[in-house]
Amino acid sequence: MAPNSTPHKKRIAVLSPVAWRSPPRQYGAWETVASNISEGLVSRGWDVTLFATGDSVTKAFLRSVVDKGYEEDSNIDPKVAEYMHISEVFERAAEFDLIHSHYDFMALTYTRLVNTPVLTTIHGFSSPQIMQVYEKYRDGYFVSISNSDRAPGLNYLGTVYNGIDLSLYPLQKSRGEELIFLGRIHPDKGVHLAIEVARQSGCPLLIAGIIQDEAYFREQVEPHLDSQQFRYLGPVDIAGKNELFARARALLHLNTIPERFGLVLAEANAAGVPVIAMDLGSCREVIDDGTTGFLVNNVEQAVQALDRIPEIDRITCRQHVQRCFSIDKMIDGYEAVYDEIFEIESVGRK
Amino acid sequence: MAPNSTPHKKRIAVLSPVAWRSPPRQYGAWETVASNISEGLVSRGWDVTLFATGDSVTKAFLRSVVDKGYEEDSNIDPKVAEYMHISEVFERAAEFDLIHSHYDFMALTYTRLVNTPVLTTIHGFSSPQIMQVYEKYRDGYFVSISNSDRAPGLNYLGTVYNGIDLSLYPLQKSRGEELIFLGRIHPDKGVHLAIEVARQSGCPLLIAGIIQDEAYFREQVEPHLDSQQFRYLGPVDIAGKNELFARARALLHLNTIPERFGLVLAEANAAGVPVIAMDLGSCREVIDDGTTGFLVNNVEQAVQALDRIPEIDRITCRQHVQRCFSIDKMIDGYEAVYDEIFEIESVGRK
Repeated sequence: MAPNSTPHKKRIAVLSPVAWRSPPRQYGAWETVASNISEGLVSRGWDVTLFATGDSVTKAFLRSVVDKGYEEDSNIDPKVAEYMHISEVFERAAEFDLIHSHYDFMALTYTRLVNTPVLTTIHGFSSPQIMQVYEKYRDGYFVSISNSDRAPGLNYLGTVYNGIDLSLYPLQKSRGEELIFLGRIHPDKGVHLAIEVARQSGCPLLIAGIIQDEAYFREQVEPHLDSQQFRYLGPVDIAGKNELFARARALLHLNTIPERFGLVLAEANAAGVPVIAMDLGSCREVIDDGTTGFLVNNVEQAVQALDRIPEIDRITCRQHVQRCFSIDKMIDGYEAVYDEIFEIESVGRK
Repeated sequence: MAPNSTPHKKRIAVLSPVAWRSPPRQYGAWETVASNISEGLVSRGWDVTLFATGDSVTKAFLRSVVDKGYEEDSNIDPKVAEYMHISEVFERAAEFDLIHSHYDFMALTYTRLVNTPVLTTIHGFSSPQIMQVYEKYRDGYFVSISNSDRAPGLNYLGTVYNGIDLSLYPLQKSRGEELIFLGRIHPDKGVHLAIEVARQSGCPLLIAGIIQDEAYFREQVEPHLDSQQFRYLGPVDIAGKNELFARARALLHLNTIPERFGLVLAEANAAGVPVIAMDLGSCREVIDDGTTGFLVNNVEQAVQALDRIPEIDRITCRQHVQRCFSIDKMIDGYEAVYDEIFEIESVGRK
């Protein structure tokens, strides 16, 4: 659908993070979602301005004061980039009917200085210390990305699951032989547990993702690497992910803390790849246990689940993502939330 | 003078940093100045609200959302503290006729969202990256703390030298025997040069201040320490400073980068202690060469200057500070700047 072909008139500012480009070249879940929302809204005729890095790619109108992601250019001071980027959208607040922020607690501190309503999608609570900010601004408008990732007392208008662009992850018709791990190399993501499952099952394991915790990689991942059973491929882009999906028997996602959403679960399922996921946080909202993968509680159950992978129908996996985690489905959710906000605001102003 | 005894009616918000308490217990130049301004304004009858840590001590009305300095309590996330603290004053902007910010570039990003004029005292440009923020907000109101520490293109209303509370630093009538270094242990402050001057002159050297650069301390300071000629005393509070001043032959301040103001130069002079300072940045604005100390360009000149210390009259040193760097003098300067802003604003609003 061409931009502006439908009758939406409302002007939406989408505030993406500037750690990475929107959409990111490789890692960058928040930027991925902000990008998917922007493109989805544009395709339905909304008047969308994406506030993101200058090298971002979008069909929306792009506004940027930061040329590149601060994670991609060491000349950029992240603190300067954040303050400049966030304040820019608030200085232009009067140009918009709604600001849709993906910029965590920092953006909240500007919200009371403008008249434009601000919706914040909470992509995760990164530390106990930031909760005081959410507590102060609890009367704002919030969306959670899973029912499990909620803080009490905030004015949630709903949960809107993240949506992915299924065209980027074509169905891989036949099952591969290898186990894959795809995500940040960090204890939270349980790479060490994936290695243990592979070791016990004797299956080869391909590991891909950015190294976020160097010591963890050095101590708990690197010693296992060889050219045979355990291999680390570094970060991968979308093409790299699809190569992995083509070779995958299953995706292992044995997170050690509650998952907030888990984009990679939906991406793997979209490609027809079954997922074995720890039953923590949002995983049971994304994975249909026994149908698109298996929820487990420990390494032993994960090893057992591997035997049942042939029960999973790959086409059903993709259909599940199409139904629940497509961009279209996500935009349906946000349109409903936006309408609710416009309704509340119009009543409030009377 | 008692608070509110004079007819000022204007309401001033002073935004202090929250790295340390205002005034700081030991180190914390920005908090010291913000505190001195607040107390000085109160004593002249201004209606002052100090935005600072909750444990701050002031005769102004204290507003705080951060209990303690983030440098003094590791449970506090500096980023959360800064965003919460800065936004608080801007959310209350309508309660004030002027916001006087000591919070660097971060506070600037809120200034266009409020109607209250904001004056920023620039305590130093900490990195090239922050200049883009000052560039964007160059039409704001700025004060420099020395004529030398200015960036081109900013709307400076004047230089107002930092003022100190002279009652805290009584005149030490007689000259001591030791050389003293007082400041952050950091290459910028030239501790290694002070050590070299002491070594060449054979004088004992007392070193005090927080260790900001651990490697520098370990490699260039610690190896020289003994119980005789070179001693490190750690950070000192005001009583500790006065003990040092009582023992001082001279203060060595051989900074390696341009000094922005140099509070310690005024403090030493207030106590009657001559200063040997590198002729970089503001030092020649604070030290009256040949009268309150000596400006030098290298270690050799500093060693030579030591021989001329007896020429310096200690009472003249104190009188110079009384005349140029007292809180009263500083408040005179800021009152003139405030009046100019109120005049500009009243014209602008017509």
